[in-house]
Amino acid sequence: MEKPRVAVIGSGSIGLLLYAYLKLANWPALLVTNRPEQADHLNKEGLTFVAKSGEHQPISVTATPLSSFSAEEAEVGFITVKSFAVKALLPQLQRKKWDGLVFFQNGMTHLEILRQIPARAICCGIVEIGAKRESDVRVQHTGDGAIWIGDMVGDSKNFDPMWACLHNAGLKAQKVTNWQDKMERKLIANAAINPLTGLFRVKNGALIENQLFSLLLKELVKEACVTLGREREVDEHLAYTRAICDKTANNLSSMYMDLTHHRRTEIESITGYLIKEAAKKGIEIPNTSFVYHAVMGMDEEGRKVRMG
Amino acid sequence: MEKPRVAVIGSGSIGLLLYAYLKLANWPALLVTNRPEQADHLNKEGLTFVAKSGEHQPISVTATPLSSFSAEEAEVGFITVKSFAVKALLPQLQRKKWDGLVFFQNGMTHLEILRQIPARAICCGIVEIGAKRESDVRVQHTGDGAIWIGDMVGDSKNFDPMWACLHNAGLKAQKVTNWQDKMERKLIANAAINPLTGLFRVKNGALIENQLFSLLLKELVKEACVTLGREREVDEHLAYTRAICDKTANNLSSMYMDLTHHRRTEIESITGYLIKEAAKKGIEIPNTSFVYHAVMGMDEEGRKVRMG
Repeated sequence: MEKPRVAVIGSGSIGLLLYAYLKLANWPALLVTNRPEQADHLNKEGLTFVAKSGEHQPISVTATPLSSFSAEEAEVGFITVKSFAVKALLPQLQRKKWDGLVFFQNGMTHLEILRQIPARAICCGIVEIGAKRESDVRVQHTGDGAIWIGDMVGDSKNFDPMWACLHNAGLKAQKVTNWQDKMERKLIANAAINPLTGLFRVKNGALIENQLFSLLLKELVKEACVTLGREREVDEHLAYTRAICDKTANNLSSMYMDLTHHRRTEIESITGYLIKEAAKKGIEIPNTSFVYHAVMGMDEEGRKVRMG
Repeated sequence: MEKPRVAVIGSGSIGLLLYAYLKLANWPALLVTNRPEQADHLNKEGLTFVAKSGEHQPISVTATPLSSFSAEEAEVGFITVKSFAVKALLPQLQRKKWDGLVFFQNGMTHLEILRQIPARAICCGIVEIGAKRESDVRVQHTGDGAIWIGDMVGDSKNFDPMWACLHNAGLKAQKVTNWQDKMERKLIANAAINPLTGLFRVKNGALIENQLFSLLLKELVKEACVTLGREREVDEHLAYTRAICDKTANNLSSMYMDLTHHRRTEIESITGYLIKEAAKKGIEIPNTSFVYHAVMGMDEEGRKVRMG
């Protein structure tokens, strides 16, 4: 079987990292950017990939802006745009039947609309590694961890050779069967760490070093567990969440960065998912509800700044 | 009866403003500062008082640092330090029996300890005017409103001539009998406006312009009313609180300023009072509890910055 061509849609940190590893694995890939200037820049200069070891490597790039991307150019799509941007991609994704699509978003609200896309296989990609976009043409792989792939629709076993190639190139890409469990696990941690660091403008580590923040972290983890029917696992999820804060103590969360730069956050897809689930079940989650409205409100303030 | 000498203890915006009006009323007064340098500076340069009209007026000052202040120098004390600083003043205030003391703090936790001070009259001063300290030696009277004086211990009718003089000088200083009601009214508004503007780093006006913040404002007002047994007055207090946001739309709240400058906030005296009252009554106030822990935690982060 020929190697299916991969279009990596979205050129943030995860998009650039996945593209770099595809090229390192000698896999045919196209990078689709939102801004035409970034595609130009990448086509001219290539991508600088910085490995965990600190070693630099130049990667030649074939990039195209989303506005001129045609679905015919690839059989497989890696969708790495932010969760709230998935909806806008639907018309383009619905233009043909894909061999496979992998969605790499945070949160879980975007899952509802994926079944509207024709594809032999639709997978989720759960990112538990660190990637840092240092510029439009430079990405660093930071920290350990893996990318977990779960089959949401159909069966993706045709792509196992691709995962094996990426794995050999140095990216731990692993299949999981219990993807919903893994996704919820990440959602619980994100729903606690992201809004609090964003609201308090602190690094992840402060949420375990500061006793008062720590208390709120616990409340949010507890409420997320109750919402997802996992109230018996609170201690386990709290330990997992605190371990992330510890391991990434000096990192600024994506929500912190988004709020600081007046960019739209992923609150809707992360905390908003819990709010909807809790409403369905008639559960009260006051702390989650507070941070939801708080970050949504700050998003709104950021929008005013962006619009001038 | 001779005019009782007034020691204004604390030289923040309210302290400087009260001192200026006492001198404009030709009343004998001494200003007691925390930092010796400010006393020096004021003794040398005097105080510039900026009226609501924008008119400037020089005020000659007799200032002394707290460390060399003797209780014998005055018969009346206007205590204008922050609520959390009242406790540290107790030894100095207990050294003699005062004719009268007036306490001008935000919040209500400091009220508990006032009965330990020997005085013929102890009053609360509820500040509903705007004052802005532009520098160590310059204060502006901004906005309208009054200062309300209530008798907490004893009877302060001996000081009525003083209030009349201040009133004639342009400061609306008025006696109230229902001081507890007035204090709670202000507490409810402060407990909503202060933590939210501090957490979100927004001006007061954003709490009514931004729908999401507005929702949280309402929750906090509601919880404060329930805690104080005023649940039937929610609409009234919400209207009062929103009116303050509207009138001071472009102002930065004291808690916003304190958090931004890594200074200790008055959260304990404002929201902390509600937390204690709710605990006594077994009432759940989750939103108030969230902002309490959040601001307490940010205070703690600020302390780390202050301590280097």
